[in-house]
Amino acid sequence: MTGGRILVVGLGPGPEDWVTPEAHQALAIATDIIGYGPYVARVPVRDGLTVHATDNRVERERARHALELAKAGRIVAVVSGGDPGIFAMAAAMFEVIEHGDATDRGVDIQILPGVSAMQAASARLGAPLGHDFCAISLSDNLKPWSIVEKRLIAAAEGDFVIAIYNPASKARPEAIFDAFRILCGIKSPDTPVAFARAVGRPDERIILTTLAEADPSIADMSTLVMIGSSETRLVPRSDGKQPWMYTPRSYGRKP
Amino acid sequence: MTGGRILVVGLGPGPEDWVTPEAHQALAIATDIIGYGPYVARVPVRDGLTVHATDNRVERERARHALELAKAGRIVAVVSGGDPGIFAMAAAMFEVIEHGDATDRGVDIQILPGVSAMQAASARLGAPLGHDFCAISLSDNLKPWSIVEKRLIAAAEGDFVIAIYNPASKARPEAIFDAFRILCGIKSPDTPVAFARAVGRPDERIILTTLAEADPSIADMSTLVMIGSSETRLVPRSDGKQPWMYTPRSYGRKP
Repeated sequence: MTGGRILVVGLGPGPEDWVTPEAHQALAIATDIIGYGPYVARVPVRDGLTVHATDNRVERERARHALELAKAGRIVAVVSGGDPGIFAMAAAMFEVIEHGDATDRGVDIQILPGVSAMQAASARLGAPLGHDFCAISLSDNLKPWSIVEKRLIAAAEGDFVIAIYNPASKARPEAIFDAFRILCGIKSPDTPVAFARAVGRPDERIILTTLAEADPSIADMSTLVMIGSSETRLVPRSDGKQPWMYTPRSYGRKP
Repeated sequence: MTGGRILVVGLGPGPEDWVTPEAHQALAIATDIIGYGPYVARVPVRDGLTVHATDNRVERERARHALELAKAGRIVAVVSGGDPGIFAMAAAMFEVIEHGDATDRGVDIQILPGVSAMQAASARLGAPLGHDFCAISLSDNLKPWSIVEKRLIAAAEGDFVIAIYNPASKARPEAIFDAFRILCGIKSPDTPVAFARAVGRPDERIILTTLAEADPSIADMSTLVMIGSSETRLVPRSDGKQPWMYTPRSYGRKP
């Protein structure tokens, strides 16, 4: 070991004012930046910083590269959108270490949290995550679809608010349609649903609807789909803006 | 209306370097700060800033006070630890607006996300939230315990990672014992469990154990309890530090 280490950095959903001081400090001391191209592009270029931009879906290769650089004494910032601990690079890093050798297990690693997509969506919508909730990724690249189905059913039967990540990949555009079919069989048709796309970025778009009326085709990979619990409701605003969507802390006390 | 508004600000779990620039800006422009004493105490005192520190568990009174100040033209920062959208002040604010009059519904409100307790715990532990997860509050101040039970069972049957908030209040210290009894009946005894207390603060303490061996009495109101899924595992570290706890992105591919 030669003082090298890895910082797995959450850059948040996009806006600079959601990036923590800790993340900024990590980018300032790093010798190397590794990540998916669009995230790496958010890091200011400076003298002495080596940039390694990679394609999407090569998380293991990226983690392996970071480990080798750190063992060679480099300070490596592995950058991730949102929070690296939530459906992102931190898990990929430990997957590679688990299957690696003893030298991998000696590398100094720090995970730096960031504002996640579901928190950004929640902030814009009101407070849909104000009470018990689940986060489920619909991607079936790495898990069988039967597990996704089982979890959607459990989440609906437990009456959780559900934050859906990766609703529609290129490989499986029908995932969100299948998910809505499952949820419609269990939950009330008037359950509030929001499609929160690219929150915090210039192309942000929020659509509020209900489970019965939702058009799942509007969800893409930049969309966080928020499905209410039986308690989640809308509060109209008198200024003509979109209603607030929120989940009260109490249960079974409808007004 | 006279330009008044409400900013519901997430201060994160404690450390300054987890406070977003957006939150700092809100505190800089506010005329009034409202919140539970320990959170208000984290805001630097300055000329012209009126501070309203209140007890815990008076969220509705606090929200009502904020609305009245905003309607009188003040810029009110309602401060919350962690993320105000996750089991915190944002939902309380909309509860009061829902039951209020039309003038409440015209108040300009913005929710400012922050690093939540579960994200802080996850960052320290490794990546336990790397795959599908639930967040459940054990507080039964505002919901019947039967709902908590139903959700714990659903979360266990769906094989989610479970982040438990409010494990043991003064009013219900046995909540976390009851929760473990339910989970032990469904999940494997060797499921990894972490008690992450006051993460980011000087009295931070992390205890890694298993469902069968866990001592729920160590959980207090500053503790986030993290319960693994069937895939969550530990990765030993060769430097003698506590193992990493993480949940892989894949399912059913144990090494």
